Amino acid sequence: MNAPLRQSPPAPVIAIVGATGAVGIALLESLERRQFRVGELRLLASARSAGRRVPFRHALVPVEELTENSFDGVDIAFFSAGAGISREYAPLAVAAGAQVIDNSSAFRMSDDVPLVVPEANGASLQDAPRIIANPNCIAAILTTALAPIHQRWSITRLNLSTYQAASGGGAAMMEELRAGTSASLAGEDFTPKVLPHSYAFNIFSHNSDIDPETGYNGEELKVIAETRRILSQPALPISVTCIRVPILRAHGIALSVRFDAHITAEQIRGALQDAPGIRVVDDWAANHFPMPSEASGEEDVLVGRIREDLGDPSGRTITMFIVGDQLLKGAAQNAVQIAEVLIKTHTLRESTASA
Amino acid sequence: MNAPLRQSPPAPVIAIVGATGAVGIALLESLERRQFRVGELRLLASARSAGRRVPFRHALVPVEELTENSFDGVDIAFFSAGAGISREYAPLAVAAGAQVIDNSSAFRMSDDVPLVVPEANGASLQDAPRIIANPNCIAAILTTALAPIHQRWSITRLNLSTYQAASGGGAAMMEELRAGTSASLAGEDFTPKVLPHSYAFNIFSHNSDIDPETGYNGEELKVIAETRRILSQPALPISVTCIRVPILRAHGIALSVRFDAHITAEQIRGALQDAPGIRVVDDWAANHFPMPSEASGEEDVLVGRIREDLGDPSGRTITMFIVGDQLLKGAAQNAVQIAEVLIKTHTLRESTASA
Repeated sequence: MNAPLRQSPPAPVIAIVGATGAVGIALLESLERRQFRVGELRLLASARSAGRRVPFRHALVPVEELTENSFDGVDIAFFSAGAGISREYAPLAVAAGAQVIDNSSAFRMSDDVPLVVPEANGASLQDAPRIIANPNCIAAILTTALAPIHQRWSITRLNLSTYQAASGGGAAMMEELRAGTSASLAGEDFTPKVLPHSYAFNIFSHNSDIDPETGYNGEELKVIAETRRILSQPALPISVTCIRVPILRAHGIALSVRFDAHITAEQIRGALQDAPGIRVVDDWAANHFPMPSEASGEEDVLVGRIREDLGDPSGRTITMFIVGDQLLKGAAQNAVQIAEVLIKTHTLRESTASA
Repeated sequence: MNAPLRQSPPAPVIAIVGATGAVGIALLESLERRQFRVGELRLLASARSAGRRVPFRHALVPVEELTENSFDGVDIAFFSAGAGISREYAPLAVAAGAQVIDNSSAFRMSDDVPLVVPEANGASLQDAPRIIANPNCIAAILTTALAPIHQRWSITRLNLSTYQAASGGGAAMMEELRAGTSASLAGEDFTPKVLPHSYAFNIFSHNSDIDPETGYNGEELKVIAETRRILSQPALPISVTCIRVPILRAHGIALSVRFDAHITAEQIRGALQDAPGIRVVDDWAANHFPMPSEASGEEDVLVGRIREDLGDPSGRTITMFIVGDQLLKGAAQNAVQIAEVLIKTHTLRESTASA
């Protein structure tokens, strides 16, 4: 009770690159709701968005144009403006002394950049890397749900199909879903701009390029490569089909997990029940399971339909259904959680955090 | 050219039980577009719908109340008013001399009732059964796509996740999706009546009861049992998760098929390319694959994303994405196709067809 007060380090200077995009806005929401200490907030975007004012903690923060000099004095720079911007500006931010947490795919497969979901592999932050990669949204949500399972049992195969929201395609795709659906209900013509086809009451294979070698699309190959990296299982066989569905901001995943030995649904449910970042929603009697309507705006990943897979007579496979907010755990919140770990473990480099 | 004219048998008398439901209306559409010869059309429904007039081939046909005497003189009776009505009235229709094609689940697992998808197991109609069961929508669409594969290679396992439309829940669920979405876009309150939660921009585990033994829902257990029966593989391991998505009348299926030996995507594509009832939509360069917007109102089942499964290093698994119209191939059209086979093979019992 009478212990001497320990002096808090100064609150870090935070920069957000891509502050006006869907993930940028979710980053501000996550910093706010998680009561992240922010010394100064620097919102960076293209010249087109500069001058706009964005609300944060009862203030309106002006958006500045991103330039080479944007990172002077910055402690933590969140990047969410696409891989091209990250490749160009992240090294400049590092040179200016900032710690970079990058939401793009630019560095996710670089050996010297950890790819981090704190619940799954937060320990990889101990080496105080200058750049940390934030995973693809499906990989982040999937590995959050798998973390407590992976820590106890040996996973030998994953088979998943995704139900992905418009938010993964950015604010413009969300607006196209709303506007196209509104036109469809009114019986009016609508010309899509973001997609080559209608999104209203429609589902479609993920709109990333198909790899001509494998026939898998870019999203599916990211899910495979990043999930393997986060789980430290570089050869884990993963079957994945990525489909977009007409929902706004939460992704669903139908998942089968195979193990190296017999396992029960009860064991898996027990492991998930009290795990960090997970809420089990699995009410068989009421037919109440994870839904985007309940996962949207929620920090936890919802997991349910946990059952022994009837397709594996050897009893080694468990099937489940997962839903997580694409903009929160699938992007912004995970990035903020990475920053929290850096601060909590004093990994944020002294030279900048105490500047 | 001068061959003697063979006299056509008289056009059969057709009854439709549940004529005002979503499938009943699709039955009329299918009879019309497939130019099915109809001698007389008897539309049957509950007392509530009796007296309504339904359009068929430029005429308005009055709906009659279903009674014990509704089947006098009927050659073919299509049932689509739920399992309870089928159990009660199908035996009466048979006793009156009609051939019953039942769209409900009432007789699908009865040993003496064939469960038929003409492309997959049409030969089972040769025994002239009095009642023929029309499969669950997912089982029908799935086995149509699997038929040409199953005929050439040995399938050892299926793993599928579904993207099911509102139409499977009937016209009321379709209307609830439209009305709820409209209210959501307008920012208005909406109280769902068909479902216990919102359907607008939402996905949810299929709304059939969960089996407390297995944790699988009724829809999933139907898919497993009926697919095994149609393919004549009573022990085929099948993993399935059934999810409803906010689309109106076409179901999607993300599918992995395992074989007993190495196989290539090219072999599977070749088998599907010219198969009846299937249209391959698999344009990797244009990222054009099966979508409900193109499958709705279409008789063919669309198949694409055909690729070797990266989750099976043994090279024995192929992954694909399938979309079919739930009301057509998933219900009404398949029933009409069964009737066509009966007539074409002269299996329709003489006593009635020539009455």
